[in-house]
Amino acid sequence: MSGPELDRVVVVLVRARNPNNIGAVARAMYDFGFRHLRVVNEYAVPFETARSAVDASEVLAGAVAFGSVGEAVAECTMVVGTTAVGERALQHPLYGLPEAAGVIDEELALEAGRVALLFGSEKTGLSNDELSHCHWLLTIPMEQHGEMRHPSMNLGQAVAVCLYELRRLNVTDGSRERGRPAAAEVGEMERLRTLMTEVLEETGYAKRHPANCDEAQIRRLVLRMGVAADDVPVWMGILRQILWRVRGG
Amino acid sequence: MSGPELDRVVVVLVRARNPNNIGAVARAMYDFGFRHLRVVNEYAVPFETARSAVDASEVLAGAVAFGSVGEAVAECTMVVGTTAVGERALQHPLYGLPEAAGVIDEELALEAGRVALLFGSEKTGLSNDELSHCHWLLTIPMEQHGEMRHPSMNLGQAVAVCLYELRRLNVTDGSRERGRPAAAEVGEMERLRTLMTEVLEETGYAKRHPANCDEAQIRRLVLRMGVAADDVPVWMGILRQILWRVRGG
Repeated sequence: MSGPELDRVVVVLVRARNPNNIGAVARAMYDFGFRHLRVVNEYAVPFETARSAVDASEVLAGAVAFGSVGEAVAECTMVVGTTAVGERALQHPLYGLPEAAGVIDEELALEAGRVALLFGSEKTGLSNDELSHCHWLLTIPMEQHGEMRHPSMNLGQAVAVCLYELRRLNVTDGSRERGRPAAAEVGEMERLRTLMTEVLEETGYAKRHPANCDEAQIRRLVLRMGVAADDVPVWMGILRQILWRVRGG
Repeated sequence: MSGPELDRVVVVLVRARNPNNIGAVARAMYDFGFRHLRVVNEYAVPFETARSAVDASEVLAGAVAFGSVGEAVAECTMVVGTTAVGERALQHPLYGLPEAAGVIDEELALEAGRVALLFGSEKTGLSNDELSHCHWLLTIPMEQHGEMRHPSMNLGQAVAVCLYELRRLNVTDGSRERGRPAAAEVGEMERLRTLMTEVLEETGYAKRHPANCDEAQIRRLVLRMGVAADDVPVWMGILRQILWRVRGG
């Protein structure tokens, strides 16, 4: 999902009651590069409280209040409701989040595609009426705790997880895998093995534990160290120092 | 990741200050089916406050407090630190979360694999000393907002996103690597580090190369050895023999 595509995603909070949750949602949006937050609330208080928090983000500053779900999603081409599974008889197609992200991605690949993600109130989720604005539903796969009805997820966390999934594979930043450090070349490991053999002999270890000390065994032991290329000189230095000291230095 | 594997994942909160965040972490763990929460805190107050909340979950009820990171991760075979990119000069391999989940998954496929996920304080993240207990680091890919230093993510949201990714595919994948020997527990590696420190001091290496020899550096060097569980007694024997000889035995 590229920058212009992110700008065609709208997060809609419906009847969120806790200002802290609204703030947490805005923060997650900022973290993942989304900008358009809309709030549908009968009462203006939670939204106003969230906006007046000292650490309110620019996302929150730009958030817009709407009087109804219909108005909030009016210009979108795809409206996705979020739900905890099993909450109600589903009259919509339902996708798990990983698959849902693919569907949303395809919609945004269309030039005019504009996607709304709806999140319901902390207590009750989205009502049937609110769900009726949705093309389909998305659920975050969670652990099923036996017979117990599963509590819905914390609002700020649910939004963070959804936005993470939408950005999952295409965040362009410096954080891609830098990989494990390069492994040492086998030739270097062999020099380490030679030094190690000397250490084992000169300290008397080889005499006490001959079963551990044939050449192949020491080689395997050293190879299993999985020394990174950068660590080879350090280990060579340590072993040489041990030898020097053992030899009476 | 299957049920028994989930039970071999430990979430460790280091110096978390906000009881609400500790509660949110516990809730995310419950949502995604993880059970083992550990808290490392100089002050008991945030943990006790979180535990006494009316809606405290069973995860929180079973959480355990530790006095140090070393003790909290002692029996784990892989310790993963979480970090916001660019926070510091990195001395560890760094993976983005999607790739990191694959590495963790492989470790848990080993029968004795036990993975700790470390999260630092809300304000400062993990310190260098705390990071020195980690085999490698994980970062959640986020949007880079120009020159501005990016704020680290909300703790409860960061944990939720990480655990979501670990459960994301829910695959019991028969193709995973199973031939690798089990890694040593971190507590054993710490004993190796102690012995290694003595060796470096008594041979004079520490005096000649002090820059290589502070506690965190030796710990990282030893962790990078990637010692297999079966090799620990061998390495202990070798180091003890070196010490015995160096001390004039």
